[in-house]
Amino acid sequence: MRKDLAVVLLSGGMDSCLTAAIADQTCELAFLHLNYGQKTEQREKKAFQDIADFYQVNRRLSVDMQHFKVIGGSSLTDKSISVENANLDNEVIPSSYVPFRNANILAIATSWAEVIHACKLFIGAVEEDSSGYPDCRETFFKSFNLVINEGTRPETQIEIVTPLIKLSKKEIVLRALALKAPLHLTWSCYQNEEIACGICESCALRLRGFELAGREDPLQYETKPSYV
Amino acid sequence: MRKDLAVVLLSGGMDSCLTAAIADQTCELAFLHLNYGQKTEQREKKAFQDIADFYQVNRRLSVDMQHFKVIGGSSLTDKSISVENANLDNEVIPSSYVPFRNANILAIATSWAEVIHACKLFIGAVEEDSSGYPDCRETFFKSFNLVINEGTRPETQIEIVTPLIKLSKKEIVLRALALKAPLHLTWSCYQNEEIACGICESCALRLRGFELAGREDPLQYETKPSYV
Repeated sequence: MRKDLAVVLLSGGMDSCLTAAIADQTCELAFLHLNYGQKTEQREKKAFQDIADFYQVNRRLSVDMQHFKVIGGSSLTDKSISVENANLDNEVIPSSYVPFRNANILAIATSWAEVIHACKLFIGAVEEDSSGYPDCRETFFKSFNLVINEGTRPETQIEIVTPLIKLSKKEIVLRALALKAPLHLTWSCYQNEEIACGICESCALRLRGFELAGREDPLQYETKPSYV
Repeated sequence: MRKDLAVVLLSGGMDSCLTAAIADQTCELAFLHLNYGQKTEQREKKAFQDIADFYQVNRRLSVDMQHFKVIGGSSLTDKSISVENANLDNEVIPSSYVPFRNANILAIATSWAEVIHACKLFIGAVEEDSSGYPDCRETFFKSFNLVINEGTRPETQIEIVTPLIKLSKKEIVLRALALKAPLHLTWSCYQNEEIACGICESCALRLRGFELAGREDPLQYETKPSYV
């Protein structure tokens, strides 16, 4: 039986790497990477290519969304806003929030999926660890799926799949290790491109996940505080 | 009283020009133009700038969405697919359909609107004359507005406004003339950049509108068949 074709959104981080490992169990894969002017763009793109090589994925698309750099409004894309150190207990939407980013990403992914006839769209969004980003919640993805149904050809059927949405970073670490996902090839740091900083939000969430799972992160860090 | 700030999606065509004229009656304007690798990109961009000059709009953003060229699947962006001549009675989605284009456009517009604190987002989509594009229907915009509510900051309130959605091209011509919208600055042709072809879908819809309205189109055409 021919497998379903799935577009997997692969940033190059740990979550999307596990998402790819999960999609790989049942689907033929197409990997999509988005550059949105984030400071660590080159490093993330390398992680994307390395993970695509690992899973031997031929259908790869890397798209430059340069408008986020122009639009600004986020510490990830706007040089005038500095990347905050992590505050994992904070309920406020952090400066790294890129306005409506996931809608932009899903729109591109849907356009591609419609053209290559993919019927699934995997995205590794995590509600709990999403730092309060409004476009990382399950309700957002459900609403977006309705938009896909409305806005594509009648014969196009695309389902957004969010296998990590209810997982904690600890569970993500354990599941990724169980599936032998290539975490050593991933990149999570928002700040650096050579050695991960260990103190930005993204490093902090990742390190806390490994710490709670009682496992060792294969990446190198400039500093490795305890977040537990 | 300070006017609401509105992002107006301005392709440079007749519909978006009337949309700008309508938005101008009640709002402060910000104009957004999207290049998606369409064959007439440069000409449309000129129309955008000319109309922005006409309305003295300072907040202008022009975004390159080069991914549509890579993704392909449409005669507007893919050189291997030719632009069909019009068949206005056809119910089939034409080759010019750019997969899920309006969702991509609205996602960018929402990101910008959120950053500049605009509360309205005007788009000149027309259901009747939309050539059967699935992402031009009112239900699509309603669904997308739910996604905006879900996926932006809690304090962000953005309403999609589609003032032309139920109008015919005839009504658009008459309304645009009544509002003194600068139709002489617009560009609609999908095929040419100097003199409009008169036979592509977009020219045909426009010419039929003028014909039914009993008015003269200020643009020049290579050929001007009757579409009534």
